[in-house]
Formats: sequence, C-alpha cells, structure tokens
Amino acid sequence: MTPLPPDLTARFLTVRARTEALLEGLLLEDMGLQSEPDVSPPRWHLGHTTWFFETFVLLPYLRGAVPFDARFGFVFNSYYEAEGPRQPRARRGDLSRPDQATVLAWRAATTEAVVGLLRGLDDDDPDAATVRARVALGIEHECQHQELLVMDTKANLAAQPLQPAWRTAAPRSPTRGPETAWVEVDGGIVAIGHAGGGFCFDNELPRHDVLLAPFALASRCVTAGEWAAFLDDGGYRDPRWWLSDGWAWVQAGDVQAPRYWSRDGEGGWLVYTPHGVEPVAPDDPVVHVSGYEAEAFAAWSGARLPTEHEWEHAAAGRDRSGDGTWLDGDRWHPAPPTAGPGVRGMLGTVWEWTRSAYLPYPGYRPAPGALGEYNGKFMSGQWVLRGGCCVSPRDHVRRTYRNFFHPHQRWPFCGLRLARDLT
Amino acid sequence: MTPLPPDLTARFLTVRARTEALLEGLLLEDMGLQSEPDVSPPRWHLGHTTWFFETFVLLPYLRGAVPFDARFGFVFNSYYEAEGPRQPRARRGDLSRPDQATVLAWRAATTEAVVGLLRGLDDDDPDAATVRARVALGIEHECQHQELLVMDTKANLAAQPLQPAWRTAAPRSPTRGPETAWVEVDGGIVAIGHAGGGFCFDNELPRHDVLLAPFALASRCVTAGEWAAFLDDGGYRDPRWWLSDGWAWVQAGDVQAPRYWSRDGEGGWLVYTPHGVEPVAPDDPVVHVSGYEAEAFAAWSGARLPTEHEWEHAAAGRDRSGDGTWLDGDRWHPAPPTAGPGVRGMLGTVWEWTRSAYLPYPGYRPAPGALGEYNGKFMSGQWVLRGGCCVSPRDHVRRTYRNFFHPHQRWPFCGLRLARDLT
Amino acid sequence: MTPLPPDLTARFLTVRARTEALLEGLLLEDMGLQSEPDVSPPRWHLGHTTWFFETFVLLPYLRGAVPFDARFGFVFNSYYEAEGPRQPRARRGDLSRPDQATVLAWRAATTEAVVGLLRGLDDDDPDAATVRARVALGIEHECQHQELLVMDTKANLAAQPLQPAWRTAAPRSPTRGPETAWVEVDGGIVAIGHAGGGFCFDNELPRHDVLLAPFALASRCVTAGEWAAFLDDGGYRDPRWWLSDGWAWVQAGDVQAPRYWSRDGEGGWLVYTPHGVEPVAPDDPVVHVSGYEAEAFAAWSGARLPTEHEWEHAAAGRDRSGDGTWLDGDRWHPAPPTAGPGVRGMLGTVWEWTRSAYLPYPGYRPAPGALGEYNGKFMSGQWVLRGGCCVSPRDHVRRTYRNFFHPHQRWPFCGLRLARDLT
Amino acid sequence: MTPLPPDLTARFLTVRARTEALLEGLLLEDMGLQSEPDVSPPRWHLGHTTWFFETFVLLPYLRGAVPFDARFGFVFNSYYEAEGPRQPRARRGDLSRPDQATVLAWRAATTEAVVGLLRGLDDDDPDAATVRARVALGIEHECQHQELLVMDTKANLAAQPLQPAWRTAAPRSPTRGPETAWVEVDGGIVAIGHAGGGFCFDNELPRHDVLLAPFALASRCVTAGEWAAFLDDGGYRDPRWWLSDGWAWVQAGDVQAPRYWSRDGEGGWLVYTPHGVEPVAPDDPVVHVSGYEAEAFAAWSGARLPTEHEWEHAAAGRDRSGDGTWLDGDRWHPAPPTAGPGVRGMLGTVWEWTRSAYLPYPGYRPAPGALGEYNGKFMSGQWVLRGGCCVSPRDHVRRTYRNFFHPHQRWPFCGLRLARDLT
Repeated sequence: MTPLPPDLTARFLTVRARTEALLEGLLLEDMGLQSEPDVSPPRWHLGHTTWFFETFVLLPYLRGAVPFDARFGFVFNSYYEAEGPRQPRARRGDLSRPDQATVLAWRAATTEAVVGLLRGLDDDDPDAATVRARVALGIEHECQHQELLVMDTKANLAAQPLQPAWRTAAPRSPTRGPETAWVEVDGGIVAIGHAGGGFCFDNELPRHDVLLAPFALASRCVTAGEWAAFLDDGGYRDPRWWLSDGWAWVQAGDVQAPRYWSRDGEGGWLVYTPHGVEPVAPDDPVVHVSGYEAEAFAAWSGARLPTEHEWEHAAAGRDRSGDGTWLDGDRWHPAPPTAGPGVRGMLGTVWEWTRSAYLPYPGYRPAPGALGEYNGKFMSGQWVLRGGCCVSPRDHVRRTYRNFFHPHQRWPFCGLRLARDLT
Repeated sequence: MTPLPPDLTARFLTVRARTEALLEGLLLEDMGLQSEPDVSPPRWHLGHTTWFFETFVLLPYLRGAVPFDARFGFVFNSYYEAEGPRQPRARRGDLSRPDQATVLAWRAATTEAVVGLLRGLDDDDPDAATVRARVALGIEHECQHQELLVMDTKANLAAQPLQPAWRTAAPRSPTRGPETAWVEVDGGIVAIGHAGGGFCFDNELPRHDVLLAPFALASRCVTAGEWAAFLDDGGYRDPRWWLSDGWAWVQAGDVQAPRYWSRDGEGGWLVYTPHGVEPVAPDDPVVHVSGYEAEAFAAWSGARLPTEHEWEHAAAGRDRSGDGTWLDGDRWHPAPPTAGPGVRGMLGTVWEWTRSAYLPYPGYRPAPGALGEYNGKFMSGQWVLRGGCCVSPRDHVRRTYRNFFHPHQRWPFCGLRLARDLT
Repeated sequence: MTPLPPDLTARFLTVRARTEALLEGLLLEDMGLQSEPDVSPPRWHLGHTTWFFETFVLLPYLRGAVPFDARFGFVFNSYYEAEGPRQPRARRGDLSRPDQATVLAWRAATTEAVVGLLRGLDDDDPDAATVRARVALGIEHECQHQELLVMDTKANLAAQPLQPAWRTAAPRSPTRGPETAWVEVDGGIVAIGHAGGGFCFDNELPRHDVLLAPFALASRCVTAGEWAAFLDDGGYRDPRWWLSDGWAWVQAGDVQAPRYWSRDGEGGWLVYTPHGVEPVAPDDPVVHVSGYEAEAFAAWSGARLPTEHEWEHAAAGRDRSGDGTWLDGDRWHPAPPTAGPGVRGMLGTVWEWTRSAYLPYPGYRPAPGALGEYNGKFMSGQWVLRGGCCVSPRDHVRRTYRNFFHPHQRWPFCGLRLARDLT
Repeated sequence: MTPLPPDLTARFLTVRARTEALLEGLLLEDMGLQSEPDVSPPRWHLGHTTWFFETFVLLPYLRGAVPFDARFGFVFNSYYEAEGPRQPRARRGDLSRPDQATVLAWRAATTEAVVGLLRGLDDDDPDAATVRARVALGIEHECQHQELLVMDTKANLAAQPLQPAWRTAAPRSPTRGPETAWVEVDGGIVAIGHAGGGFCFDNELPRHDVLLAPFALASRCVTAGEWAAFLDDGGYRDPRWWLSDGWAWVQAGDVQAPRYWSRDGEGGWLVYTPHGVEPVAPDDPVVHVSGYEAEAFAAWSGARLPTEHEWEHAAAGRDRSGDGTWLDGDRWHPAPPTAGPGVRGMLGTVWEWTRSAYLPYPGYRPAPGALGEYNGKFMSGQWVLRGGCCVSPRDHVRRTYRNFFHPHQRWPFCGLRLARDLT
C-alpha cells in the first residue's frame, strides 16, 4: 500500500467531486432506495464515504476534530465491528435522516477538513505517512463506492414498475467485432500480485510465484448473442451444466436469463439499461450473469473459466482496455507496450468471473486495527472477478485488482471469458 | 351506505386538502419510507387515495376519462384482485417513481375532475346516485388513509436512528383524571349496527338484535401508569396471563413493553412521540399495545375485554369524546344527549381492543364488484377495535364503526378498556 | 365438568386399551413419524396420554408416587407452561427414546396405578372428587388423542412415497343418498352450551342464551361430487370466492384440491385413504378441506357456513349419527327422540366448519392451575368445528362439543354443511 | 480410478457386512431418525448404498436384472439429477417405508447378485473392466456412507433429551502427549494428487505440480485443552478473530463452544460421545468444530490453517496414523518409510480443516453420465479437509483424499492443525 499518487490533494478533490457528479439524472426521491439487501441507497454511499474519512483520517489525526454529528457513526458504518454497532445492512433503505442537504453539507465540510489537514502536513510529522496512506486508501475506497453507486442505482431503478431511464442515451453504433479466437498462453513460474509502482489493496499482496500450466484464453468475452444460443438450447433447464448450488439457485429463483433481460414477445430479448429498455445487442459482452451461470455456460461450451492466476498472467502485456488503449503498469497508452497476442478488452469492459475462490495470498497480512477488516474478513464463500467494468473509475482498473462476489450475485456488471486446457 | 353529506363537494375538497396538510413537518426524503411491511409510504397514500377516485369514479362515470398514467394502476392498487396485478404490498418502499411532484399533480387533476363530475351531475342521470355514493365512499376511504398516514409515519420515523420529531410539541399540562370506576350497564335485547342517518361502511350493517347479559365497563381506558405496574409485576415474563399465540409472539419478538417505550436508565420509561422522545405520562391512556398484550393485561387485572356488542351498547348515550363533547347520532354536542353514567373518552381517544373476532353481521352482504373487496374479504383472523383515536379524523368517528387489526399488530393507536361480568 | 360416568374404572380401562388397539396395522417404523409440525408421532401420543395421568393424577394424589422416569416430563409435556420446559412441538419426530417397549411398559404401569388409586378411594377422602374428576378429564383427553393419532397417522403415511394402506378395506357399497334439501330452523332465544348430564369441557360452559334469527340448513354435508363441480368451475383460481387470507394460502401453497386428492390422469380424482389410493366417491361428504376452502365453496354456492350457535341449535332433536342412530342428551337411540326435520349425519360423520371464531362463552372461567391451559389459552385465531367425525370415539361425540382449528388446517377429518339466511 | 483391489469380491463382501455391523447398539426406533437436514437416517444409508449398486452395476450390466422395487429409486436416490426425481433430502426422516426388514432383504439380494455378476465376469467381456470399476467405486462409496452413518447417528442421538449411549465405552487411559512442536517443511515444486497404485476418486486427479513456499506445521492437532483456553479468553465473543461469515454464523446460532460441548456447572466442560456424556479430555484433539471456528482459533493463535497442498506435501513420508503405524503409498507399516520429522496423527485421527476451497485440480475431468455428478458438481462454497478421522474405515484413509464440507458444518469429526509461514 506504499506509493502515493503524485498529487494526493488534487486526486482527492477530483474523486470527491466525481461521486457527486454520478448523481446526475437521479431525483431526490431515488436517493434513499434500497430495493434489495445487497444494494445501498445513493445517499448512504455519500455518507459512508464521508464517514470513512472522518473516522479514519480526521478524528485520529486532525487536532481538535469532533464528529460532525456523533450519531452518524451508527448510521454510516458499513461493517467495521471495531467501530461499534451500526444500522443493519438490509435496513439502510429505512433511512430518511440525515436528509440529503445535511449529508451534502457534511461531505463539503469533511472534504475541506481533509484538504486542510493534507496541506498542513509537515513531512517531519511522524503521522504524515500514515495520514497520506489513509487518505489514499479513502480515495480508492470512494472509487469502489462510485461503482457500487451505479450498480446499486441500476438495481433500484429496475425495480420501479415505471422502469425509468436516468442517463441520456449515448448514440450507439452497432458494432460487429471479430470472431472469438483462442489465444495460447505460456505457463511456467509466474509472479502474481502487485509489484509496487502505485496504489494497491492488501489483498493484492504479497507478490509471489505460482506455477502455471500453459492454457488457451478466449480473445474476447462471451457475447450476449452467444448467451442467447445457450438459452435457446435450454441451458437453464438442464442440470448437467450446473454446479449443485447453482442448480438449486436456478430453481429457487426460477432464473431464466441474465438479470435485466426480458422477453420481447417475439422470440427476442430486451434488456433494462440506464437508458431504459432496449433490444439486446448480440455483439456486446453479456453482463449481469452470476458465477453459477458463468460456470454453466462454460460447461455447456466444453470450456472452463480461467483461474485468477491465469487471468492475471494473460493480461500482462495484453491489458488493452475496451476503448483501444493499453495499460502498462498503471498508465494507459495508445499502443500495446509489448507485442502480446490480441486479447481484447481485459480491462474496463466487464468484471470477468474466474474459477478461483477469494482466499489470501501466501503470506497475506491484513492491516492492523479496524482497517484490517477491509478485505481479509471476507475471504470465504466468494469468487474472484478480474478486469474492471464499464462503470469502474478508469484510474481504478488494474491487472492485479481482485474483486470478489458470491457466486449467486449478479447485480455487478459481471460477465465472463472462457479458457481451455492445452492438450 | 345511503345518506350523503349535505354538501358532498365541499366535504370532498376539505378531506382532499386535509390529506396534504398532514404532510407538514415531513421532508421529501420521508415520503417514500416503508420501514416494515404493514406500513406504507406517505407518497403511496397520496397516490392510492387518488387512484381510488380515478378507478371507481372517473373512469367508469366521466365521459371520455382516461387514466392520468396507465401504469399507475399497478403501482397504487392496494389489494383489489378484481382490478388486476399490483406492486407487492411489502415492496411499496421500493418506489421512487412516480415522484412527489407527479403524484401531487395527479392529485390536483383528479380532485378537479371529480369536482367537475359532481357539479355536472343531473339528478335525472341514472348514475347520479351511484356517483355520489362512490365519491362519499372515496371520502371515507381517504379519511381512513389519513389515519394510516399518521400511524405509518410514526413507525417510519421511529425507525430512524436519529429519532426525529416531526410535529411541533403542543404545550402539555400534566393531567390527573379521576380514578377508574366500574360503570354497570344493563343487558337485554339491544340493536347493534348502524341505524342510518349518515355514512357507514357495509360491515356496520345490517342492524340486528343481540342478547346481552348485564356487565360492568371501566369508566376510562387503562393508563400508562397502570401498565407500568403490570410491567413491574413481571407481566411480560409470566405465561399465565397470555393466550398461547400471544406468548409465542412475546417470545419470538422478545417483547418487553408497549411499542415505542424504552427504558430511561433510571427505572422509568420513555416513549417516542411525534414530538420526539418524552417521559411516559402515567395518566395518559396506554397506546400501541397489541391485542395479545391487551388480553394479558386484562387477565392479570382479573377482568376481561368487552365484546364489540357490549362496547357499542355502552357507548349509546355515553359517547363523550376525549375533549368533552358528546356524540349524538353523528353530530357533536357540548353536553350529553341523555343522562347516561360517566364513561369517558369512548370516542376519539384510542382504538379500544375488544374480545370480538371480526366477522360478518348476520345477513351481511358485501357490495358487488371490486368494491365488495373493501371489507368482507378481511373477515378472518382479526379482532375488532372500537372508538377511534386521537388521529382519527373527527368526522370519521362513530359508535358503530368497526375497525379491525390482527391481534399482534400495535402500530395503530390502540389501547384498551376493561370489562367485568356482573354476578 | 361435574357428573361422572357410572363406572369410571371400567371406562378408563376401555379407553386405555382402545388407544393401543388403534396401532393395529402400523409398523414399529411408523411409531416415531412426524411428517409435518402439526402432527405428532404415534409413540408420542402413547406417552403423552400417560404423562397426563402421571402428572395430574398420580403424582399429586397417590401417596409415595414417583415419576416412572423424571426425564419423561420434558419429552411428553405438550404445551403446559406451568409444568415446565419441553421438547419443541415441531421436533417430536426426532425422538427415538424412550423406545416403544419402554413407553408401553410405562403405559401399563400407569394404568395399573390409576386403577389402584381409584379402587382405594374412600368417599370421605377430601380429594376423592378431584381425583375422579381428573381421571374423567384424562379419559376425555385420551379420547381426543385417539382421534389425533388416526388423523396424524394418515398424514404420516400419505407422506410416504410408497403410499401404504394400513387398514383392511371394509367392503364399500356405493351409496347414493337423497339430494340435499334446505331445512328451515326457527330462531328466537335459544340456550347454548352444555346442560349437565354427562361430561363436558370447560369451553362448553356456561350454558347461556343467544338470540338467533331463523335460517335454513342443508340436510347433509357438501359432497365430494359437489366439490368436484367447484373445481371444474375454476374455484381455486378465482379470488372472488376467497377470504384474503385464504387466497394468500391458496397461492403460497399452490393448493388445487382437497388434501389427499390427486388427478387420476383421465379427468377424475383419486384420494389417499387408510386403505390406499381410491377413486373419489362422489356421494361421500368431502373431507380434509380447510376453513378457507369451506368459506370459498360456500361463497361460490351463494350460501354461507352456519355459526356454531345455529349449528348447535339445529342439532337439537336432530342429532342423527352417520349410522342412523340418534343422540338424545348423551345417549344413542335407533329412532329420533323428537320429530325434527331430517338433517342427516350431524354427529360422527365429518367435523363441520362453522363461521364462528373460537372464543370464550360469556362468563367463561378456565380451571385453576396447569389444567386451566387446557382450552382457554387457544382462544385466538381458530374457528369452531362441530359434530365429530368418522374416527371420533363414539362416546366422545356430542352436540355441544366445540372443536377448533386454524382455518388453514385440513389434516383433521373436516368438511362442511351450508346454511342460508331466510328472507 | 484404474487399479482394483486384489480380490474385489472379498472386499465387497467385507465392506457390505461392515455397514450392517455398524448398526450394533442402535434400536429399530433409531433407524429412521433425521434430526437435522444434513444427516440421514441409518435405514436410508442402508438403502442408498444398495440403490447405488442396483442402479449403476446390476441394472445396466446384469442380464435380465429388474429393480427389486421400482419405487425405491425415488426413495433412495441421493442427488443424481440424471437418475430422476427423488425424496427431498431434508425429508428423509419422514420415511418409515420400506421398513427395516424389507431394506435388509434388498441388501442381501443385491449383495448376492453383485457377487454373482462378478463371479461370472469373463475378462473378454467388453464390459468387464467397467463393471469392476463400478463395483470398486460402489465399495468406496459405501465406505463413505459408513462414516456418515456414524456421524449422523451421533447427531441423531445427541438430539434425544435422554442423551443415550449406544456404544460400550472402551476403557480410557488418560493420555498426556508431548507438547506441540513446529515442524519445518521444505517448499519447492511438489506433485499433488494421486499417483496411482490403488483406488482414488476423480477429484484427486490429475496429479500435477504445485509451487510451495517453505512453511511450518504443528506436530499435532489442536487439543481440547487448547480450545478451552480460547473459550476462556472470550474467543467466541470477539469479532476480531472471525471471518465475516463466521461471525454472522456465531451470532445467528448463538454458538458458544464446539458442538456437543456443554458446561458442567463448575467451570468445566462436558462432551456428548457415543458412550454418553463425559468430561472433556484436555489432551484429545478438539473435534466437531466448524471451518469458521478453526479459522478463528488459528487467528487467535497468531497462526493459520495449512492449504491442502501444504498438508498433502507434509504428510508424504510422515503419514503416521493415530495408532503409530505409518502409511506408505496405501499400505501401513510399523515404522516410518522415510525419516521425516515427527508429525503425529495426520491420518485417521480427525478430519483437518484446510484453508483451501474445494475446487477442481487443473485438467480435472468428471466421469461421464450420472456418475459424473459424484464429486464435480459440489465444487463451490466448500472447504477441503484432509486426513480421515477415528471413524473413517481404515482402508479408506489416504494422503491424497479430499474431503469437503461447508465451513459452517461441524457434525463430521473435524478438527484442525495449525501452520505458520517461515520468515
């Protein structure tokens, strides 16, 4: 978690402002919605990201700091047991108070106080490094909540019988990409985990060696059109393709298609998007499928999901984003940094399910204190996703980033890419 | 359901305006809250009472009428199976759309259209009587929702960790009333049910004779102070006093006191009110107790709850409201119409649990069509409450009114009055 | 509860033996089954009826009595809070110990001890009357469990994929009775409740007057054939006929027909019986329908269920059992005691749902102590059934007997008889 | 899955007889118990292991074979979707039919038929190898159910309020072993998975290389005494030590100690065993702890659980069983085959939780057809346990065996051994 962005204050201000900009298109009525236990209301995200800076930066390090309102700790603590009791996660939609104006005022005051603290930091101050590291962590934390805010809002608005659009539709030119190809990737001893040179979370460390067999990886993500073929073949009604837990999930929820898909009444499919309900575009990567669905599709295809190690190894030197730029370390270039084979869209397109459980890397150590709850305590029952999605903040996407969700969850922007054994 | 208010249009406009006046003190953020399945968001009440007039008055009887928005039927139908599918009751809190401004605009347009329809009614029109009867029913329906709006709001705001006040506190002079006395009431063959001379619901009919034994009724409702004595005596921990279902309810919910009560840390009790958290006032009638609690208290007291027949009979000629006025038929007087013994506050203080199941009167006939669902289909598993409460619209309170809730429910303003057998 | 059977000891021995005789046709493997929370295993019934005599008769009144096994109180207490903690009702199927041989040995020892106590009773003994009254109560209690044992066994064996028969089929001659007729019954002030002259439960007292309007009652119960017409008319898919709770119950459980009915694949119906699966006999009374189904059928028929008062009044002088004998007071005769109109089979055919909630009679007093839990604490949420069924012990059936179940329950042998208002 | 035991028929008969021998000490009343959804009744295990041979060996390969009873497929299929519908897993305790005598007769007939089929096999028969492989699989399958039968029985009998013993107590000499030591284990590229030379399941294949860092492993399992120290230190009340899911599990179930432990009233602990309730023996390995508890204990200890790769690597050459013999390949020796450091009791003591998710080995291929459901479809949400326990059939224990359970489950005989990073 060492290196810091060159200008921490500027990045802090940028990220704080971007959170509020994400509210565009929403009504005040939308700010308190929680249509299912997994999602949080937009206003709660605004408050929680502020609570994070107040609790972990201002109160311990700003002389004389007092809470904006001592009761907000209960309201906006997410899951930090060490920080005391809190509003139950599934009941965040009950909150109308503090109201929007108060939360925004608290945001502004907190932002200002953090900037003041940063500006006043003396490099000789023994806490200076810790303060900067915590602000940096808070920035990344807020980036994560920006993505959550969008995916939660999509779930909340899809739950409206009126199915509103909340974004102005970007003009869409139907794209027709090249066919999927299998790209062979060498095995051997490869280094996994973050190498330094930018921020990373504790779960990306320590960097360590792993032995991989050679494998093949699909040159692009599974498309909505390919998924429709799986549906047409009765894929959701045939237990052969499914993990036992996945089959139970399909039956309990009467799952029949990716989330947000619905029949158009003429044999085709519609999909709810931030621009309203549209026909499914067959060349788009399929999105909002669960890990169970991804596994079943892979089995039906005679392929498999990659492991997170395979994915990370394959992405090295091939980290082309969806818009054609390439990632080298943590900077983006218009051309590939090395001449790897053409694997498209591994960064910033959809979160790609891997067949890896979310577990600690060998030698993993969580941070001390409450911040140690950030990642480590969730290391059971979840699967790793890699790559980032269309609504991930661009400066938040990197090859070593380990996202994680339960295999039944599909309100994130999650899809998949197939892999295959060689020989 | 025959006689109509003298000036239907005036009453319609008054009631519609009163609904909106009830929103005073609430924030826009509060308008969508549903903190438990039994309650509905304020905005939903605004829309539902509008949907009622649009669906049952305007669309069938106003030439050329079209729905304000055809999708609102799904959103705002409460439980009318004959009117088609609808938003699940427990998911009304998911609704942010239509937004507040749209709902208010719909209210205004609907109010105006109903007034226009009423004004244009020709007495020769074969539908005139039906239209007026339906408007009258819609008015009473909206009165019921006014009370619901207040009790639901209390539950919603009590669920806030910030426990906000939303009404300006009326200055409270501590009152110390006369002690409770037992008033003996004659038995015999008595007439039960509405006698005409004003609006009533179908469930108050037909008026019919019932044979009652003489009994004694308490001169006032059970007070908070008396309830505290029940608590001090371990009443919530002793199964002897409880119905079997009630005891299961106490244990499953770890119920320890009336709803909204909490310990003050020094042996006393606090209570959440629209004015915020206050000490319990011992002479106030206890309120927000379930039917199970009412039964247990009565058993502990060596008394019982009255039946609804006893209650209605006792209230005849003794219908003094909480503020000292008396009800005769459906008008209020400063002095008792007849010289009955002093039973205080039977109307408009708290809803009083009776020991009567909510069942049809002999010869009961529900209305035809969807409006037949108004009362009759709920005649199982509920108990009758009588008398009206502090937030019941004054012109909505009458001796024959049959309110009904499940015996575990206590978010209404419900209390109790004891009865006793003679001999 | 005063008068006692002429020879208490003989009746005691007869009833104890009859319980064990009911096990005929069952295997030891069947003795522990509890296929749903409402039913109890046969072995548990054997033990519980023994615990009742040990707890309420032997331990308090037999000098030097000690429990057969002190741990059995936990195992076999049903719901008596005053007697301490107990095996949860829904977990009775977990019990394999005490085993069958031990339970039978306990039964034998308890039976012998009670007989010894009764024989040694001196009329001068101040406890003599109490002992005899408790034995008499225990006998009636065991009669109730005999019926439960049969209806529970039917549920348990119907839950077997092998659908076994456990009774030798009595030869069945298809019967074709007279058509249903409406019998007019006078109203007026009638006495309700037990008049003395035999055992009754506390809930049948006190006898009191009730005012009834005249009504008509069907001369026989609704038949399976009539029910099939309701099914053919889509009765289970039309919310118009159903109480709101009933409609929710139908949808939640996907209820499509009476319990134990299944399609025969050719448009007809089969039914599981103690003799195995058989075609439904159209002239038999329909049985195993819930109160909700009974209400819906009555609504569809344009009729209603009788109240328990109407039923009891109508049965006076018309109490012909299913086999053609007649009940006068509590004795059976081959001819009607009075010349009432022909209402068939009101006693001992099926339990008939009434439209009365199970509530205390005016002036009701439960017994003191633990035995006061016998009836009174269940007086919420249940409906009254009258008449007794084919598996009710013949000496247990009487006109004033108030059986009660929740309106969704249908594993008892419950059916219905229609009523109608006159005028 | 290739090599077969030298004398397949003899092993088949031995294993079949051993299953029935495990019933010793149980009553017929115990045979149908299912006290929680995870366990199955003993009789069901008897039938299911028979169904396996009938379904996968006799019906496809014995000319003219017909099912013993065609309805048994529904009753005794466990989870094979390809074999059709079945009794729901959680409802196996509802089964009294087929009865015990019938199931035992079916067992005998099936055993005899399999022996006849094996004896008549001609090596030239193209199916011979498949038949033998399936019988070998059926034998291992029945070995697994032997262990399940014992652990399920323990749960079933512990659920009896009478807490019966069902095994004669072996005389216990209190043992006091050497203190736990840390044994350092080399890293490097190591081969994981079964090497041939005996039966293995598909999930132990393919053998493949893995890169391990050096680590330290505890010389023995965590003891009950060490666990008591964790309890004394408030380990179950401190969220610091727990995974988030584990903490939720502790709170939801009010978990306070290992399963089957209870307070002795004087500060010590008792434990339910097959010999009845006994004091906890501090030097015994702790058993019946969940994966969550194991993780929490490891965190509290400042250590961690080993991965399944580390465990398998460490056990090579150190596979001493609990009784002092050593495993080499799949044979047992009185002395260690190689001079590894002393790691005690890695085989046949308790199942040891590892920090590895149950996932396919690289290149894993499930068997074709219904038997492909044996292992692969459970590869989500479960953790791997290694080593075998005291009730695992001795010939069923091997270094590469991958057992798996959900991290909240603890009715198996599961404990843990700590590991530690070096450096």
